[in-house]
Amino acid sequence: MGKCALLTQIEDGRPVSSLTLAELTSLCAELRHVIIETVGRNGGHLSPNLGVVELTAALHAVFHLPDDKIVWDVGHQCYAHKLLTGRYTAFSSLRQQGGIAGFPRTSESPCDVFNTGHASTSISVALGLLAGEHLAGNSAAACSVVAVIGDGALTGGLAYEALSCAAHLALPLIIILNDNRMSISPNVGGLSRHLSRLSMRPKYQTFRTAFDSMTLKIPLAGKALFNIVQRLKRAVKAVFYQDNFFVELGFEYVGPIDGHNLKQLTGAFADVKARTTGPRPLASPVVVHVITQKGRGYAPAEDDPGRFHSTASFLHTADDTAPAAEPAAMPWTRIFGTALAEAAREDSRICAITAAMERGTGLSLFKKEFPGRFFDAGIAEAHAVTFSAALAARGLRPVTAIYSTFIQRAIDSVIHDTAIASLPVVFALDRAGFVGGDGETHQGLFDIALLRTVPGITIMEPAVAAELPLMLHWALAQNHPCVIRYPKAEAPKPDTALSARLSVPLTPGRGVFVKGGIDFSAAANSSPTAAVCLAFTGSLLNEALETARLLNTRGADCDLYNLRFLSPLDETFFTALVSRYRVFALAEEGVGPGGLGEYAARLAADGTGRTTVVLFNAGAAFYTQGSRAELLRRAGLDGASIARRLSDILEL
Amino acid sequence: MGKCALLTQIEDGRPVSSLTLAELTSLCAELRHVIIETVGRNGGHLSPNLGVVELTAALHAVFHLPDDKIVWDVGHQCYAHKLLTGRYTAFSSLRQQGGIAGFPRTSESPCDVFNTGHASTSISVALGLLAGEHLAGNSAAACSVVAVIGDGALTGGLAYEALSCAAHLALPLIIILNDNRMSISPNVGGLSRHLSRLSMRPKYQTFRTAFDSMTLKIPLAGKALFNIVQRLKRAVKAVFYQDNFFVELGFEYVGPIDGHNLKQLTGAFADVKARTTGPRPLASPVVVHVITQKGRGYAPAEDDPGRFHSTASFLHTADDTAPAAEPAAMPWTRIFGTALAEAAREDSRICAITAAMERGTGLSLFKKEFPGRFFDAGIAEAHAVTFSAALAARGLRPVTAIYSTFIQRAIDSVIHDTAIASLPVVFALDRAGFVGGDGETHQGLFDIALLRTVPGITIMEPAVAAELPLMLHWALAQNHPCVIRYPKAEAPKPDTALSARLSVPLTPGRGVFVKGGIDFSAAANSSPTAAVCLAFTGSLLNEALETARLLNTRGADCDLYNLRFLSPLDETFFTALVSRYRVFALAEEGVGPGGLGEYAARLAADGTGRTTVVLFNAGAAFYTQGSRAELLRRAGLDGASIARRLSDILEL
Repeated sequence: MGKCALLTQIEDGRPVSSLTLAELTSLCAELRHVIIETVGRNGGHLSPNLGVVELTAALHAVFHLPDDKIVWDVGHQCYAHKLLTGRYTAFSSLRQQGGIAGFPRTSESPCDVFNTGHASTSISVALGLLAGEHLAGNSAAACSVVAVIGDGALTGGLAYEALSCAAHLALPLIIILNDNRMSISPNVGGLSRHLSRLSMRPKYQTFRTAFDSMTLKIPLAGKALFNIVQRLKRAVKAVFYQDNFFVELGFEYVGPIDGHNLKQLTGAFADVKARTTGPRPLASPVVVHVITQKGRGYAPAEDDPGRFHSTASFLHTADDTAPAAEPAAMPWTRIFGTALAEAAREDSRICAITAAMERGTGLSLFKKEFPGRFFDAGIAEAHAVTFSAALAARGLRPVTAIYSTFIQRAIDSVIHDTAIASLPVVFALDRAGFVGGDGETHQGLFDIALLRTVPGITIMEPAVAAELPLMLHWALAQNHPCVIRYPKAEAPKPDTALSARLSVPLTPGRGVFVKGGIDFSAAANSSPTAAVCLAFTGSLLNEALETARLLNTRGADCDLYNLRFLSPLDETFFTALVSRYRVFALAEEGVGPGGLGEYAARLAADGTGRTTVVLFNAGAAFYTQGSRAELLRRAGLDGASIARRLSDILEL
Repeated sequence: MGKCALLTQIEDGRPVSSLTLAELTSLCAELRHVIIETVGRNGGHLSPNLGVVELTAALHAVFHLPDDKIVWDVGHQCYAHKLLTGRYTAFSSLRQQGGIAGFPRTSESPCDVFNTGHASTSISVALGLLAGEHLAGNSAAACSVVAVIGDGALTGGLAYEALSCAAHLALPLIIILNDNRMSISPNVGGLSRHLSRLSMRPKYQTFRTAFDSMTLKIPLAGKALFNIVQRLKRAVKAVFYQDNFFVELGFEYVGPIDGHNLKQLTGAFADVKARTTGPRPLASPVVVHVITQKGRGYAPAEDDPGRFHSTASFLHTADDTAPAAEPAAMPWTRIFGTALAEAAREDSRICAITAAMERGTGLSLFKKEFPGRFFDAGIAEAHAVTFSAALAARGLRPVTAIYSTFIQRAIDSVIHDTAIASLPVVFALDRAGFVGGDGETHQGLFDIALLRTVPGITIMEPAVAAELPLMLHWALAQNHPCVIRYPKAEAPKPDTALSARLSVPLTPGRGVFVKGGIDFSAAANSSPTAAVCLAFTGSLLNEALETARLLNTRGADCDLYNLRFLSPLDETFFTALVSRYRVFALAEEGVGPGGLGEYAARLAADGTGRTTVVLFNAGAAFYTQGSRAELLRRAGLDGASIARRLSDILEL
């Protein structure tokens, strides 16, 4: 990829504000070129970034970072921003281990003012930054604080809480509403409808103006005047219906503006900047409503922005525009989607609920076949869970599919609305464990520890494809909440004998031996075949097999135990199991504090044996981006690391 | 308290719908009488219940429970509902152990359709119940589903997520907006302002009507007509501004209605019921906007509804209307409030943030002294936390005071917005541990387990008053998030010697011996003075002292160790400490799974000693209401229970 002239100049210190309109237009072409090339090689969020190229260039032309502050909601649309703030040369390392993150990171640049990754936080954050600026004594507000939020993220309750609070604080916050009519899945709900009407405003304004001049020209009285007044009222109503959501909250409203017209954008931003700074700034937030097109400038992404929302690397020659076969073929997602649709054919009580993750959680098949039983709550995880609990209370069997990282946003809906009344909601947690390129905001490492604390919840994890339908059927037959978690990965395909061994029916609270083990069913229990046993959460099957292979090369035998049930364990059974081994290791793809390992250690302490318990987990840390294999290595959860530590303990 | 005639008839089976308007009026007097008498004796939520007496009577006169369903948001206003649904005789046991709960509980009556306790869930729940009803094939919607939500609860993001989704699903849900201009603290934000304007609607309607008729009577043309049109437009704008929030979301809007006028209420409810049921129900939700007065009918509560929002028992003779000195004098709350104000005098960077719990968290003093540094986010915990994180990012020192049970609603704001960037927010978690009369939705038993999983957070708990300022000062000097938790109780007042021993400066990760112990500072470490050590979280100081006293009567000595730091522990030190004892017990006022005890067990397993580790905690259960002492006994956390179990282990 050759050097882009303007991006090079900007990286060398030329301010974006010095560019002419023609140069800005060229700059946007360069930005699109680099984004398409880089995402094509490294994967990433394509459609959202192509949609905000002009918006970002115009923001940088008007506002001066890092004195002015831009908070990108979600942050997946920050690529152009990064290219304009000192990261053009480094950008080829986007989303790679040790490289440029796919989301804003304060560690990379002072122009990234706050870390983001989850939706709907930007208004809270920007409001806090601005309130802090004023408290710090800069009430002349020399700096502007801008939140850029998409229409999808605006369905999240946190955004609304912040809007309400912003109205109350009456600070001159700038909110750019990036209206692309699309969150990850097309968004739903009243606000979406509102925005559609809002963007029709110019038409109504023309209508109203026409009426105004008409009524001035035609002398009328009585009935005729009444008719005109009636029609005029409808017109006026239409106008005021359109900007009322924000105006009602006490905000100034500007727009809608064509988000690909640099002149309009820079004009509006300069105007808003002038009104919100200086000696007499506005005493209210301003919303600038910008209409953008996701995927703009790359035909395949324009045609199917959802498919290119987040994509693996792809080749973008003229006739090969589809994402290449992804590690993101994400078979666990497909296995779940297929199993759920099959179950739903047998049981009409089964419903599926998601929070703007229809494709990502594999529910498209279900939705197609059972549209009336499919509910997309929008980017609103708490509502998705509480709504599911109510469906369960009414006798239905809701299956709620959410990414592991996003269930963090609905913990109280799980505790307060689901668990206290023990309502049978099945949570399908996709992307549990390490997720790869999205980095620390998206790792699914907390779900075990957070949900294990909630009384009456069962947590399961499959190791091979055949176990997922077993777990789903079991969960659907329970009268309490259940969780099934699985990683963003392909299900392993072990050999036939092993597959058969792993596909036996479930026994609640117990796992299954993958290798070696103890036959507890025999009248006299068999002895363990090895001095060491490695128990593991399903996603680590391959790592466990590799551990056993490596230990074997060093002359030690290692039994392998697929936990299946992560919580609660059959404690009597588990304690007996642990006590049979000299060394009992437990590997889980999740954080250490509050994790399963501590539970196992507590149970082992209750046992009478003198087993050495060894725990493998992600510790107490946040993990930046990297491939799944790299991340497992970093956490010491790969086969080589586990085998090395066990070798030391076994003194091999 | 003599038997009330109409309440007795209703409990005996007479339907509320059979009452005449005059009888309904008498019924309301009876309801008020019983509520004031009972809350006067047992404590409870007074103002909210007195405000909805007519509203509840009218709902029961029109809707037929349990076929029709009423979901009470928060649920603290359900007393009249309980008195009308078979719980009049039992009502004297309100909020007492084994008695009638202060919130809706499905276990008590089929008329309590869903458990509530936290705010803003009702619309999600009611929508789920109605969607479930339709899915179950009752699309003729024989039943009505009603959510009753206050204006305060409407500031919560979950309510907004549900409103947005309700608009999308277009089901004939009934939402009663109980507008009393007051949540626990007077609520804030844009919506509040909106509701104030909304309630002025009749005035504007009159204005508009006057203009309509005027324009019909006066023949005008040219400039004069234009002026009228301008004025008319303003009038119309005013009208449409007023109902637009709900209308904009696609809802029908009815109101505002006088919430103490039974005729208006029953008329509106009957009308709404007819429009939302039957063969051709509305294809949208309906909002009925009802204006009520908190504390209605009891002068002291009318005058200061905040004080009587939730109250301990009080005597309500003519000249003694104040709540009696409460166990709810809640000194930990006051100790915190005083310590924070003191710290804030020294450091202008300190701000205080709460989520509609200004009084409850003791921040009134701070607010009075530093109004510009005080932020009330409304009932919006997630926003309160994310906003705080942004203040910290800007260099301020936010102290965010939230009840333990409500931090459950902001876990992702803690993880994603605060901990990943290690922003120095200090969380003051009031009402941590058992809370008494409010029951299972309000127990503060999850905070340790939930927050301990988050990397880089320090959790502390004081045992005596002097420790809280020490912890606050230490936390304010850190560059990472810290949590200080304390119970809804008075701080213990041990004798002077013990107080001095407990007030020594903090050593991160370590606690302090209250009794006995090991002198690690000596060149040769001293030996422990006892075979058993009981470590405990601060709130259990009295229980620990009682344990030692009881063991002493049985001839055994017990060292006592106040943990101070709950997470992270100084692991080397702690492991060494544990290994010195034959028996090491740890008592924490929180759930077992994921709790501190498991952490200790894991550390003990790493030690080389053969210490028996014994854990005391609230297990894996939800706890219904009871006094704090009763709840501690139920959990086996009282001195007698701890001493008994330790005696067994020590074979005393």
